Amino acid sequence: MTNLQLTSYDCIVVGAGLAGLIAARNLQRQGHQVLVIEARNRYGGRMSGQYLPSGQWIDRGGQWVGPTQERFLALLDEYKIRRFPSPNQGKTVLVFNNKRYEFNGFFQGFHEGEVPDIGPAEWQDAMSAWARFQELTKTLPSGYPQSNDHTKKLDSKTFAQWIEENTSTDFGQWYFAYMVRAVGFLGPAEPQQVSLLHVLWGQNCAPQAEHPEAELIHGGAGQIPDKIAAELGERIRLGEPVVRLNYDSAGVTIETTQNTFTAKFAIIAMPPHLAGRIIYHPPLPPQREQLTQRVPMGCCAKILISYEQPFWRKQGLAGVAQGNCQWLELCADSSDPETGVGVIATFVVGDRYIRWRSMSGPARRAAVLSDLAIYFGQEALFPISYDEVDWPGDPWTGGAYAAFMPPGVWTSFGEALFTPVGPIHWAGTEMADRWPGFFEGAIRTGEAAADRIALLLREK
Amino acid sequence: MTNLQLTSYDCIVVGAGLAGLIAARNLQRQGHQVLVIEARNRYGGRMSGQYLPSGQWIDRGGQWVGPTQERFLALLDEYKIRRFPSPNQGKTVLVFNNKRYEFNGFFQGFHEGEVPDIGPAEWQDAMSAWARFQELTKTLPSGYPQSNDHTKKLDSKTFAQWIEENTSTDFGQWYFAYMVRAVGFLGPAEPQQVSLLHVLWGQNCAPQAEHPEAELIHGGAGQIPDKIAAELGERIRLGEPVVRLNYDSAGVTIETTQNTFTAKFAIIAMPPHLAGRIIYHPPLPPQREQLTQRVPMGCCAKILISYEQPFWRKQGLAGVAQGNCQWLELCADSSDPETGVGVIATFVVGDRYIRWRSMSGPARRAAVLSDLAIYFGQEALFPISYDEVDWPGDPWTGGAYAAFMPPGVWTSFGEALFTPVGPIHWAGTEMADRWPGFFEGAIRTGEAAADRIALLLREK
Repeated sequence: MTNLQLTSYDCIVVGAGLAGLIAARNLQRQGHQVLVIEARNRYGGRMSGQYLPSGQWIDRGGQWVGPTQERFLALLDEYKIRRFPSPNQGKTVLVFNNKRYEFNGFFQGFHEGEVPDIGPAEWQDAMSAWARFQELTKTLPSGYPQSNDHTKKLDSKTFAQWIEENTSTDFGQWYFAYMVRAVGFLGPAEPQQVSLLHVLWGQNCAPQAEHPEAELIHGGAGQIPDKIAAELGERIRLGEPVVRLNYDSAGVTIETTQNTFTAKFAIIAMPPHLAGRIIYHPPLPPQREQLTQRVPMGCCAKILISYEQPFWRKQGLAGVAQGNCQWLELCADSSDPETGVGVIATFVVGDRYIRWRSMSGPARRAAVLSDLAIYFGQEALFPISYDEVDWPGDPWTGGAYAAFMPPGVWTSFGEALFTPVGPIHWAGTEMADRWPGFFEGAIRTGEAAADRIALLLREK
Repeated sequence: MTNLQLTSYDCIVVGAGLAGLIAARNLQRQGHQVLVIEARNRYGGRMSGQYLPSGQWIDRGGQWVGPTQERFLALLDEYKIRRFPSPNQGKTVLVFNNKRYEFNGFFQGFHEGEVPDIGPAEWQDAMSAWARFQELTKTLPSGYPQSNDHTKKLDSKTFAQWIEENTSTDFGQWYFAYMVRAVGFLGPAEPQQVSLLHVLWGQNCAPQAEHPEAELIHGGAGQIPDKIAAELGERIRLGEPVVRLNYDSAGVTIETTQNTFTAKFAIIAMPPHLAGRIIYHPPLPPQREQLTQRVPMGCCAKILISYEQPFWRKQGLAGVAQGNCQWLELCADSSDPETGVGVIATFVVGDRYIRWRSMSGPARRAAVLSDLAIYFGQEALFPISYDEVDWPGDPWTGGAYAAFMPPGVWTSFGEALFTPVGPIHWAGTEMADRWPGFFEGAIRTGEAAADRIALLLREK
């Protein structure tokens, strides 16, 4: 330890989530001296899994990968990690206003396959609003949202307001509220909490129509941090929250609760609000300070429920369910065909989460299983495992899936999201301009930060 | 120091702003052992002043008091601090779309006195919208906003959206944008950043019509922290940021960057986002964790410019100006008649602040003086002092005047603002339900926290 403390590094990475691990690994592969400092006693951040007694793995954080997530697919290939198609044979269940429908299709903003039988006026209401929404996305150029009269206008409105103005049925309204509570790039958020501009931007750079949940990973995404960390070895220090970061043009001095380290550069690979909890000296520029106060994490718990087998398939169901039930609006079949165990991944989001989290553990479990029984039948009441992952209750992430922008943040403070401050560079899925909120976004920002630092180290 | 470390206190107050000082003083007066821990090397928080070489004082933070601010008036009386009427003899200047008006009146939401000559349609537009705004405030019961269908609807909209729907002229639009950028209880904020519900609530519990800026204080509000601190003596520790707070039913253990202290109770007297930067063990309830990510400080710098004398009075002007100039929307005469020096207090807010702050120091000064010359004439270009107070650049406050609620925060996370967590209680002007954002609000929450802790100590 003494030895490590005396060393000055080329770059210190704060945060051992996927973005931080990738940044550190890439710099080390180019021969640079790196150190990764992590507050938790584990690495991986929101990429985290475990094995159940049944031999089935579950992912406590993210779990999916899609065909256009190039950097994530390359990472899986590099580590020879095998994938399989997300199980979706059979009918989707929709429960809307206490009526249950089965249909061979799916929707999450975009729609494919059969239409559920909720009534032609209701469906038409949602589809015509969806067409207007898509038209509106085309008014934004690619990349981060810029600040101009048009974007300012879009950023002045909550998504709830847009929904109210563009839908006229209960179903149409829920269709879009469900979209922002279910889709990853937006927090998730209740529609009144998120900027219309942010939702449009998310739709452009992380479209569900590209099927980001097309495949699952044998053994889970949670195995990946171990593989990257193996390359970094003792260059990762766990259980050391960073308290202070002093910087000048020569580099950084980083104080954790236990030690002090110095380096030429730092990469802060954390969600913005957590990056804002470090004491910086000199203080960060005001625009960055203010940004870190204005970019909250989504309010969402993940629950993983496993069964002896995927019993829903006997009934011709895909294990995919959506609807405005009391607690669960989205369920996804996450069963690995090689284990034979049935796994449902589901989420409790937003105001549902606040109510649900205030109940006792047994009541929370009963609530989740009761909704699962509405979607999939009584067999859902008898799982072999039940795991809650309370991301908003975990202060080293503070929510899930990712951070989002309330109204007026992108167009006033957005550029501080990615602008380096002296020797301090930022990384993390929140600042990706392609697949933000996904593993793909984390990898892209980690790679980009490493590239920038490597270039600066060559110049230094 | 060793001695202090070994002592266990009845209550530790984190944050030596006005709320924290009042809480500690009141507990100590009842015979309880208290300790105040402050990150900065000074106490007072946003109550902070200084003397200029001319002998004139200036307040770097808040400075005014009004007739219904009972607890603040009582505090001033207790310490025998003298007040004087805010200078307002003479005409107000309004500059709108590059046209300059003088009138014997004032508006800031409510209006009194003469009407400026901006055109009857323009004025009528603002006034009829103001009547609708006031009607809407009456739909809210007193106290913190509750969560119900009506408040949810109001909380789904930005104030910008309400302005767009309720005004039809440039002037009408600016009238309300100016209101939320100039009035204290709202951050200040750009209208697209703040919830309509929050603005309505602020209007109810901190109405400008009660003249909260009616009086100024001889010697400045900045002298008050010294007087309270004198009573606390060495019970205040400066320059010790609190890093961790461990708690259970028996009490708290608080680690600063230098020491560790224990107590039966803690009062965290800071804006919510700063309270969220402490590492709590066990972690705070998720609703509180999420709240601290969602309540940003206003984006506002205060600038104090002094002159040999209040030259504007020769021209029959009150030293009060408002308008949509490039940088300054509100100027107020803050000259103490006993010193004879002329002082203008002004603010650069929101998007104006972001642009202004990106310029060099000399360019910032030139920008401010040039706007002052538009309002008050060329003599404004020759001050004897110029002081910028960059609150958003000060990480131990993070903005000014106070924190505000973006859409969807009150109705989903609001109750976590004031709900104690085990032995941890909260204070600070942000959580006041009367005069939030003002000194009055800070005193009320400090007093209330002390009362609660005193009661609990008696029961313990």
